[in-house]
Amino acid sequence: MTTTRAEPQPAGFADVRTTNLAVVLRHLRAHGPSSRAAIAAETGLTKATVSSLTGDLIEHRLLRETGPSGNRIGRPATVLALDGSAYASIGMQIAPDQLTALAVDYSGAQLLLWHRATAGTTAEIVALAQRAASRVRQQGRHVLGLTLAVPGDLPVSGADLRDRVAGSLRRKDLVVTVAGSATLAALAEQRLGGQRDLAYISGAAGLEAGLIIDGNPVRGGRLGRSVLGPAGTPTLADRAGIASLVRRALPDVDPEALTDLGSAVETVAVRARAGDVTAGKAVEHAGGYLGQGLALLANLIGPEVFVLGDHYATLAEWLAPAAARELERHAPTPIVASTLGLHAAALGGAVSHLHQVDIGRLPDNDR
Amino acid sequence: MTTTRAEPQPAGFADVRTTNLAVVLRHLRAHGPSSRAAIAAETGLTKATVSSLTGDLIEHRLLRETGPSGNRIGRPATVLALDGSAYASIGMQIAPDQLTALAVDYSGAQLLLWHRATAGTTAEIVALAQRAASRVRQQGRHVLGLTLAVPGDLPVSGADLRDRVAGSLRRKDLVVTVAGSATLAALAEQRLGGQRDLAYISGAAGLEAGLIIDGNPVRGGRLGRSVLGPAGTPTLADRAGIASLVRRALPDVDPEALTDLGSAVETVAVRARAGDVTAGKAVEHAGGYLGQGLALLANLIGPEVFVLGDHYATLAEWLAPAAARELERHAPTPIVASTLGLHAAALGGAVSHLHQVDIGRLPDNDR
Repeated sequence: MTTTRAEPQPAGFADVRTTNLAVVLRHLRAHGPSSRAAIAAETGLTKATVSSLTGDLIEHRLLRETGPSGNRIGRPATVLALDGSAYASIGMQIAPDQLTALAVDYSGAQLLLWHRATAGTTAEIVALAQRAASRVRQQGRHVLGLTLAVPGDLPVSGADLRDRVAGSLRRKDLVVTVAGSATLAALAEQRLGGQRDLAYISGAAGLEAGLIIDGNPVRGGRLGRSVLGPAGTPTLADRAGIASLVRRALPDVDPEALTDLGSAVETVAVRARAGDVTAGKAVEHAGGYLGQGLALLANLIGPEVFVLGDHYATLAEWLAPAAARELERHAPTPIVASTLGLHAAALGGAVSHLHQVDIGRLPDNDR
Repeated sequence: MTTTRAEPQPAGFADVRTTNLAVVLRHLRAHGPSSRAAIAAETGLTKATVSSLTGDLIEHRLLRETGPSGNRIGRPATVLALDGSAYASIGMQIAPDQLTALAVDYSGAQLLLWHRATAGTTAEIVALAQRAASRVRQQGRHVLGLTLAVPGDLPVSGADLRDRVAGSLRRKDLVVTVAGSATLAALAEQRLGGQRDLAYISGAAGLEAGLIIDGNPVRGGRLGRSVLGPAGTPTLADRAGIASLVRRALPDVDPEALTDLGSAVETVAVRARAGDVTAGKAVEHAGGYLGQGLALLANLIGPEVFVLGDHYATLAEWLAPAAARELERHAPTPIVASTLGLHAAALGGAVSHLHQVDIGRLPDNDR
């Protein structure tokens, strides 16, 4: 998910065409259905070029003709509209006890959302990936790619996992990528929320930050490992991580019973809302230290907004004010709660493949 | 110094030409003097295109013909060589009590290095900038730009300072930019050391990190402000900053006498080398906490190498091993000492304008 090296290569017509395809797609996303003449007038491309580009896009089923436009004198012009339905992209979120598969079409509309209990084997991942890909292909869609969202502390390398999954799929032409869950969740926030610059704070595995800086995903973000102080000082995850928050907030609950983090966090929210002092203090404590962690990011990287994600979003009502009090002493930055829920990383994995089309890299059309 | 937005624009022949100019310049930087035919053969450009591009570069005095090449049969081909001497770029480093001006030509050769004591007024900055620009213009060079390197904690905004300085210069066509000292020092390390990915750690003003990630400067880097712990916990600058290090290492020296940080740090180095226990312990203490700070950066951003800069470089012999012990528990990353000295930010400011030529944006030639 890092940016590629920008070594200059001789520029030619293929680059020009790719850029111009991106210009046409972007115009239609921003302005809605338009005639060829209107596209030409507003993009600065010649009419002949627009005709050729839109022909290519129609052939790739990314545009369709929607009949004549009414608002002009003379021969009515055919209007072109974006058509996302011929393409699908799949994200899978890999958690310790659950797999989630989510597919969207090129317009971002959700095509499927499946959850499966898992023991964490590659075979289970491959089986679910295969079923999801088959389903959207049966619907007549070309699959742009499949992204596996993994927690930052996964005990295998991303490249290994990608090779094992890609090698086991029946269709070898499916593009498989692997990326960190927090980064992909940030990508989902970027595409759906329109933010070009944000830090998504995930509590799902330790305490991770997904960073999109000036439009580009940035590696790193292992916020929970932060520690400053003499030997033996707790890490930020010890102080502000979801697991330690839940242990502090629910001292009467057997830790063995807390493996489903989602329902434990819901219980904390219920108790905090009911005025339970122990739960309230635990959330306040975590929120203050979370704010110190956000201040680290604000000073070192300076994202424009912090998005409290997944389990932190569930508790944002209490966490955000406590965190904001710490943060405002450093670099006042808005803190908002994510509305994408617990499978934002799967969504981010799915939308990550749409970008290649946005930038004019049209897929081969054999599905 | 942030990356620009990559909104697609219709691509045309101007972009193609700019890219191809960059390709030719890059080829000559990498391979040394070459004939037009050799450039064409190795870049994949046609001979006609290479003739046109090199004609443009000769007109801009970036290439010169150096006579026939010997190693070929038949009519000898004229060899083209890069010529950096017609262009100059100026960096100025603004410290509390000193201004430094440094100019380089397009090949990176140093043209001047001036220091002035200062009370910190805009008039002093303008006067020195003007003298430096006049000097290199008298030598027949076109000035690509002037960059002011400011500490991260400067009490005015960069844009304000730029406007005041640019507005007071006699020549209004001189491009003036302002950027953080640590970032510019990192840029100098990148251009001269060839590292595409590094964190330059500066002790000159607080404790700042200049970040170049995958070839691009990244904003932020205010490492000294980091703090994690209960209310009243010292910041990282309190624990690992140069000012606090010097106070701990030289308890017998009047703090009022320590305004020249450079000579105080030299004294610490002399005492540490002589086996002075107080100085040795102070450097060890700062080095350990500096390592915790580098670990924050390693976990959050993951630079490929840490470069201990300016005053930290002077003490690197003792700081680096102590820092490495903390860092290796997180993400083992090389720690090296900068060799660019105390005016690396001025050098970075100067070289920052050379990049526009590298990427094929040829300046107007009226100096």
